[in-house]
Amino acid sequence: MIQRKIPTGTRDKLFREASGAYRLEHKVNAVVKERGYQRVETPTIEFADLFDEEESELYRFFDNKGNLLALRSDMTTPIGRVVENTKLTLPVKLSYSGKIYRANEAMRGEQNEISQAGIELIGFSSVKAEVEALLCAYDILQTLQISDFHFEIGHAQIFHELVSVLSLTEGSIEEFRQMLESKNISGLKAFTEKYPSELDTFIQQLPFLFGFPEKVFTKARGLLPEGSFLRTAIDEMSLLLERVENSLADVVLTVDLGLVPTQGYYTGLLFNGFADKIADVFLRGGRYDELVQTDEQAVVPAVGMGINLDTLVDLQYRLNTLEVLKTPSIFIHYEDWQDLVIAEELQRQTLDSQLSLFETFEEAEEFAKLWQFSELWLLKNGEVTKLKVGE
Amino acid sequence: MIQRKIPTGTRDKLFREASGAYRLEHKVNAVVKERGYQRVETPTIEFADLFDEEESELYRFFDNKGNLLALRSDMTTPIGRVVENTKLTLPVKLSYSGKIYRANEAMRGEQNEISQAGIELIGFSSVKAEVEALLCAYDILQTLQISDFHFEIGHAQIFHELVSVLSLTEGSIEEFRQMLESKNISGLKAFTEKYPSELDTFIQQLPFLFGFPEKVFTKARGLLPEGSFLRTAIDEMSLLLERVENSLADVVLTVDLGLVPTQGYYTGLLFNGFADKIADVFLRGGRYDELVQTDEQAVVPAVGMGINLDTLVDLQYRLNTLEVLKTPSIFIHYEDWQDLVIAEELQRQTLDSQLSLFETFEEAEEFAKLWQFSELWLLKNGEVTKLKVGE
Repeated sequence: MIQRKIPTGTRDKLFREASGAYRLEHKVNAVVKERGYQRVETPTIEFADLFDEEESELYRFFDNKGNLLALRSDMTTPIGRVVENTKLTLPVKLSYSGKIYRANEAMRGEQNEISQAGIELIGFSSVKAEVEALLCAYDILQTLQISDFHFEIGHAQIFHELVSVLSLTEGSIEEFRQMLESKNISGLKAFTEKYPSELDTFIQQLPFLFGFPEKVFTKARGLLPEGSFLRTAIDEMSLLLERVENSLADVVLTVDLGLVPTQGYYTGLLFNGFADKIADVFLRGGRYDELVQTDEQAVVPAVGMGINLDTLVDLQYRLNTLEVLKTPSIFIHYEDWQDLVIAEELQRQTLDSQLSLFETFEEAEEFAKLWQFSELWLLKNGEVTKLKVGE
Repeated sequence: MIQRKIPTGTRDKLFREASGAYRLEHKVNAVVKERGYQRVETPTIEFADLFDEEESELYRFFDNKGNLLALRSDMTTPIGRVVENTKLTLPVKLSYSGKIYRANEAMRGEQNEISQAGIELIGFSSVKAEVEALLCAYDILQTLQISDFHFEIGHAQIFHELVSVLSLTEGSIEEFRQMLESKNISGLKAFTEKYPSELDTFIQQLPFLFGFPEKVFTKARGLLPEGSFLRTAIDEMSLLLERVENSLADVVLTVDLGLVPTQGYYTGLLFNGFADKIADVFLRGGRYDELVQTDEQAVVPAVGMGINLDTLVDLQYRLNTLEVLKTPSIFIHYEDWQDLVIAEELQRQTLDSQLSLFETFEEAEEFAKLWQFSELWLLKNGEVTKLKVGE
């Protein structure tokens, strides 16, 4: 027997995990359906130029005609494409669930096939859309009995504005992004010496500007010049927090002014979800007002939110709320083929029962013992004899 | 606005189709779960050498280390790999649903991303496994209210035996396969002249040896020499039909002795499902006793069955049994943020209701009219005013 390997970042799911993951996805979809979202499905394979991911992060390949294709690395971009192509009446609340693919290096130990579910609120300009995204996420986590999570709010304009004020070019943007992401204090200090501006102190303090909102906002406002565009971003963050504080009274809400948008399309408020027991962000979202363009509207305001379902399965498993597989309890065996129709009927009417696929009673008995069925029902000439297993 | 194309053989699904497809997949999974199958999920991406498909039919690409990967083109082979790798206790009844990928040429108009659901009965040698696969398929179709289908039975050994008797080599096997698939009468006649054997008449008659079982079997037996191994294949087909005839009394059952196994791993009985309104086979299955090998068993007997879910969606749509989307009827609008918690609560308690994400009443009213809500509920200081829409 050959032990066949599977590619980096992929895995098989069996039994309780596979069944639990499926049930969980179904519950998430039921919540968003109930909230009035309409399901959309886009292909796994898209033309590679749809995504602005780095080439090395995409699984890319050619079709027979030499077109460069890619496995989708994100759901929001393809859904934006659908809205543009089909000229949907806007605004619209869309939902999805499915897999996305990221060609991560082996050593980072990350999953390269990720199950994701999410929503896209397309054509909504009010902050009510951001509120809805957060409440929807909360609703989902409540339904799944997942507690011990917190939401973190950021704003894409902080990063964009700093890049613009400092007139950064491509290489230095990437460097700046990495320093912010790793909260590299000395790196950011050196950076402000290389790119001096009136925001030097603010930038140097960015690695510390996270945590409980009031403290962070007060400190940040003290560091920002009057009239700075960054104050608007902070005001928007503050407004969102004010609007959800009653509905999310039992959720810890933090802010991080150094949050870097993970996708180029984000233009406004950002949110992340963290769980105590999991290192990675399991929920991401935010406003993206410039991704979708239609004939009627050059700029279609939009907000999206996506959840990593694999992480939720992991959380449910750790919290012991992942559905346990029911062991079937009755094994129905027949030998004479004339009894098949009755056997089928009996199986259909009896909860947690299974039909024996063995020819002999001995094989059926052995199987029933192995899988811990409680009863073995023997069907003969339309008559049932009920036997206890293992007695 | 750019009209962005999507790759050959892929498509977007929206609203009723997306939601209907999802519901349908869920119903199929519920039927197999009820019959005692355990769900398995394997990765979309596998090492390319797992599949014996022709290279041009696989989407293939390299990972960062230069390994040749492929999108799975089939579910049975990866599930066989799982059974081998994890040393599962056998026998076991597994189920799956998900996408498979085939790099078809553009001109053939086929789908390259196919949603499939199915079962694998691994470790079962009795014909009860084939019976179970057919009854499970029937159960699924009944649950989905799909009628007007028929099952066709074949046998992989007919093709394999002919290839062996005629000592065909690779190129001529492919030629022979194509002639059988297209029921090429003159081609097969010429073929028997090139490769003469005592089965000449049988081979020449193969394009006609399909239809109602008794007639076909009688005719075939008349053409086969005494002691021919092909008689055993016919006896097995006959036995399977005899065993399901009562349970599938309302299903048309036909046979086709010229049926060619679509996968190299099939070793025994084959079955196809056809629907009156659809040209393609929507269900395929059969016995594959040589795919899975474990330390304990060099040969693990197995039977599988897979259904094309996209075709079922299409059938339900044509039969008008695809679930219709419920139009939400109540649109709840609030202006003062103090009302958000009550608005959320109201939405949760009211069936078919949605929360307004607009700032102003005018926008909310316009949206409610556009999407034909019947009522618009205005929430102010905790008080609800119920308004009819469009009056």
